[in-house]
Amino acid sequence: IPLSRTTRCTCIEISDRPVNPRSLEKLEMIPASPSCPRAEIIATMKKNGEKRCLNPDSKNVKNILKAISKERSKRSPRNQREV
Amino acid sequence: IPLSRTTRCTCIEISDRPVNPRSLEKLEMIPASPSCPRAEIIATMKKNGEKRCLNPDSKNVKNILKAISKERSKRSPRNQREV
Repeated sequence: IPLSRTTRCTCIEISDRPVNPRSLEKLEMIPASPSCPRAEIIATMKKNGEKRCLNPDSKNVKNILKAISKERSKRSPRNQREV
Repeated sequence: IPLSRTTRCTCIEISDRPVNPRSLEKLEMIPASPSCPRAEIIATMKKNGEKRCLNPDSKNVKNILKAISKERSKRSPRNQREV
């Protein structure tokens, strides 16, 4: 009975509250797969390690991705003087 | 002595081998922080769970991000008929 196959998405609900890229410890992206038919984006917050699922199509997620890459290009030339 | 402060980046080396978005189990993005001065992107492979660090500025990473969001928009209308 195919219906008995459990789908195992990580996210149960998707948060609408936008996340500030600076308060982000980590962002996980899980592509759609046989075990979950939709892509999932899980944000881990710096403050308390709270995990929050975000909408992959949202402006907020696009901004976060942009912020992370920008941060990188801004900071990389200064990598040398680490610490 | 400030130099004794260890920086704790997750990535030691960054892979140049491009990763196929389809072979990706998960993508983690870690923004730059006091413990690591650069943003890090860690790909976990479906096949063997191998983790590989990618260059956040690479075309490959941009394509992966695009592929993950596209997949979602392509698949979401079909979510209803899950299995």
